[in-house]
Amino acid sequence: MRVTSSLRNVSPSVSSALKERVRRPSYLKKLAQPADLAPLFQNDDYIGWSGFTGVGYPKGVPTAIADHIESNNLQADPATKKKFNLFVGASVGPEVEDRWARLDMIERRYPHQVGREIAKGINAGRINFADKHLSMFPQDLTYGYYSLKKKHGDPSKPLNWAIVEATAVLEDGSIVPGASVGATPEIVQSAEKIIIEVNTLIPNLEGLHDINQSFIPPHRQPYLITHPSDRIGTTSIPVDPERVVAIIESRQPDNTSSNTPENEDSKAIARHLIEFLSDEVSAGRLPKSLLPLQSGIGNVANSIIGGLADGPFDRVQVWTEVLQDTFIRFFDSGKLDFATATSIRFSPEGFDHFYAHWQEYKDRLLLRSQQVANSPELIRRLGVIAMNTPLEVDIYAHANSTNALGSRMLNGLGGSADFLRNAKLSIMHTPSSRPTKTDPTGISCIVPFASHVDQTEHDLDVVVTEQGLADLRGLSPRERAPLIIEKCAHPDYKDLLHEYYDRSLHECMKRGAGHEPHMLRNAFKFHTNFMEHGTMKLKGWD
Amino acid sequence: MRVTSSLRNVSPSVSSALKERVRRPSYLKKLAQPADLAPLFQNDDYIGWSGFTGVGYPKGVPTAIADHIESNNLQADPATKKKFNLFVGASVGPEVEDRWARLDMIERRYPHQVGREIAKGINAGRINFADKHLSMFPQDLTYGYYSLKKKHGDPSKPLNWAIVEATAVLEDGSIVPGASVGATPEIVQSAEKIIIEVNTLIPNLEGLHDINQSFIPPHRQPYLITHPSDRIGTTSIPVDPERVVAIIESRQPDNTSSNTPENEDSKAIARHLIEFLSDEVSAGRLPKSLLPLQSGIGNVANSIIGGLADGPFDRVQVWTEVLQDTFIRFFDSGKLDFATATSIRFSPEGFDHFYAHWQEYKDRLLLRSQQVANSPELIRRLGVIAMNTPLEVDIYAHANSTNALGSRMLNGLGGSADFLRNAKLSIMHTPSSRPTKTDPTGISCIVPFASHVDQTEHDLDVVVTEQGLADLRGLSPRERAPLIIEKCAHPDYKDLLHEYYDRSLHECMKRGAGHEPHMLRNAFKFHTNFMEHGTMKLKGWD
Repeated sequence: MRVTSSLRNVSPSVSSALKERVRRPSYLKKLAQPADLAPLFQNDDYIGWSGFTGVGYPKGVPTAIADHIESNNLQADPATKKKFNLFVGASVGPEVEDRWARLDMIERRYPHQVGREIAKGINAGRINFADKHLSMFPQDLTYGYYSLKKKHGDPSKPLNWAIVEATAVLEDGSIVPGASVGATPEIVQSAEKIIIEVNTLIPNLEGLHDINQSFIPPHRQPYLITHPSDRIGTTSIPVDPERVVAIIESRQPDNTSSNTPENEDSKAIARHLIEFLSDEVSAGRLPKSLLPLQSGIGNVANSIIGGLADGPFDRVQVWTEVLQDTFIRFFDSGKLDFATATSIRFSPEGFDHFYAHWQEYKDRLLLRSQQVANSPELIRRLGVIAMNTPLEVDIYAHANSTNALGSRMLNGLGGSADFLRNAKLSIMHTPSSRPTKTDPTGISCIVPFASHVDQTEHDLDVVVTEQGLADLRGLSPRERAPLIIEKCAHPDYKDLLHEYYDRSLHECMKRGAGHEPHMLRNAFKFHTNFMEHGTMKLKGWD
Repeated sequence: MRVTSSLRNVSPSVSSALKERVRRPSYLKKLAQPADLAPLFQNDDYIGWSGFTGVGYPKGVPTAIADHIESNNLQADPATKKKFNLFVGASVGPEVEDRWARLDMIERRYPHQVGREIAKGINAGRINFADKHLSMFPQDLTYGYYSLKKKHGDPSKPLNWAIVEATAVLEDGSIVPGASVGATPEIVQSAEKIIIEVNTLIPNLEGLHDINQSFIPPHRQPYLITHPSDRIGTTSIPVDPERVVAIIESRQPDNTSSNTPENEDSKAIARHLIEFLSDEVSAGRLPKSLLPLQSGIGNVANSIIGGLADGPFDRVQVWTEVLQDTFIRFFDSGKLDFATATSIRFSPEGFDHFYAHWQEYKDRLLLRSQQVANSPELIRRLGVIAMNTPLEVDIYAHANSTNALGSRMLNGLGGSADFLRNAKLSIMHTPSSRPTKTDPTGISCIVPFASHVDQTEHDLDVVVTEQGLADLRGLSPRERAPLIIEKCAHPDYKDLLHEYYDRSLHECMKRGAGHEPHMLRNAFKFHTNFMEHGTMKLKGWD
């Protein structure tokens, strides 16, 4: 299928920058303008994009589709309205994804989201969204699990379209991605028609990526990786050239924001953690180089990585989902040997520095697909130390990573459960409380019963807040609860939580049900009190 | 350390059966009587046993320890009372484990339990118990996570004692286990002192097992298995001969019970499932040989395996935790090519048949350690089809596998989450309701909010009851809830559940929190109504 043949006869001219990046001449004949491609997208199309944590996503065509819909006022009339099923490895820039959500162009969005407008659409019932472990999404896509209801196009392909960003195209037509890999290999493999956006503003990142072939059972093979720096693939993503229907040139940067600054709480959490890790080294349960680290995004992660750079460790390795600015400091400290992830999400200034010093960093970094970066196989084999932030943790160490008050989608699950289930040390860190409009400690992050469970009690080894650290390894639920309350809860909530536990224990023991004591009638009273009174500080248990 | 030197000078005589089984002569010098070993076990000792699902556990020494404690009335006086920390791969025979629990000899028991007395002790607060994914327990044991509080003995070894059953001992001192492997390799590796119970009643099962070496990060290696029949190890468990302090001869059989018989519900569930799997084959998402199957224990598993034997599949493979009697029929039907597990839990008649026809089965079966059998790496690589039973599933597909009414430990988690998180198809099957004393459908197995979450909504693809099957793949929470209620709930509960969902949706939409609609104040009302009135059929929602 040649989409470009249906376009205007005036082909755009090929810039010298583009010519330099695209080493397969046949692709240049498919050069198109985004505005000409936009009308080709039909209502209910299944569309995959490259991109992960707001990096490496297509900018030109998604913007042109939104422009086309907006300028023709298509959404006002049910007969012309277009809603798409959108699949991206993780989040992408707000100027495209949030805009699509605001224009009500998204029927379905899997498997992750971060963004004001998209969350609004999900919580308002306009967007069907489901979290899936980021390691599993690409395989489930190739299995056809997301396209069971796909109505038009080739039934053997889960997606009608893939729109992917590249920083270069090799002779065989394969693409060199930008600063993320995510689910792009499987999205390209799953699509009937492929549009490549060659970004000539970002440097050609050839050599940064390790792309392995993705098989389906019963033909799947072991990932032969035993060290974060091991390579098992090629430097580019294979593409079937006949399915490439258009290429465009793009010169827009990844629209990332600055990092959340550290604060007293994040520094206190980091101190507790560094102390714990140092003790593990002393006890001989961790080597001095630790084991490969995974850390999330945010100020706590910043403080931790900063603390590690100053700590008594050396030749540290990183096996994680996404690298943020603080890793530049970690590299520059000389303590970080090698880092691998599926995405580099630096701030604009971070990217400027990184691209300017590309030669210094390039041999100490590798980007992999999210199926590999988040793979239980590798996280477990390498013995990763995983650190993530929940919304709330309960007294038995079940954690809520996604839904405020059990129902309102905040941020997606991401790879948190991939890492926490399989790590050698599974750590969750959170401030002990959060402010509400009327109460500076109106939300306790330690609750009697998590209002949504994404991580189970069987998955966490350590819970840490600015108040302290609870080492849960080898403890029964009845041992965990008093410890988590004592070490981690905010002082404003300690008495309430102790009383919940003591009364639950008493009631459950009486009826021979004391393994994990609860008063189910009161289990969500922190939450319902907050909904009614704007604070979790309730008057008492009944 | 020579324990036997401290024993009576009268060595027991070596039977010819034992001589034939023990091919390392130096071990025969350590022959002892269980009664002589019993007094050596001290209060607060850390003890590991072989055994998994009531098979392959030591019978002689644990019984002798219980006899010793009982006949000397040691538990009556705090000064002589003995409580042990007990670690076994999964459950063992009730005549030892339940007896230890009844005598209050267990301080701590990880990571699994099935048994009346042991559950009673856990729920009464006498036994500290915690579930751990069965694939992770052995590695956490070797990491030292369960012995952080161990007070006496060699601090570099997590266990003071390992007591393990063998059906033979090879020249190098390594042991051939019985009909389970479980965590025995890591328990042997972790123990200061090892006692081997050579069972001469059970045949020598040399060749049935595949034992690979277990490394610790950063030295862990890939499991090079791409087919259930692949071998990556040896036929026996390596043992450091210097740590073997005693061997005993045992002639007691594994104390297994009969299988739960099929009933109308289990047959209906199996029919729905076989139809679903047949449709997946027709749609090209599964090969005609399916993919390796995992199934739990119980009558539903029996009906399913029976249904598969009669179904339109062939050359089926099994990759599971435990094999039960029904697999004999599956083998005999000619449909089952190869099966691998960590344990064979047949009924006494099943074992008689199996041992009598050992030559016919032995090349189609392999037992591995639970770290391998339940490994996320292999379950995901092979694309296993996983089928397990929960206590209850909620309308968004979170499942409770362990705690009745959120608090009372029923059965342990086992490997359910190892399989369900990583399978290509993750299936939970349950009757839609269960009887109470006063109401034949007093418990709904479909509830608004699971009172304990072991499996998250991110892990289940299919929920099936005798009422029908809900295919949840690719669905958002708002799509899942009405489908689960409609397809799976018992008719007695459909209206109540629909009303819960509709009212939750209405309330949550109003406040822009409609991703996973709940009324938290009513979320456990099914459960609290049951506690108050003996049925989940409540009068209505407020």
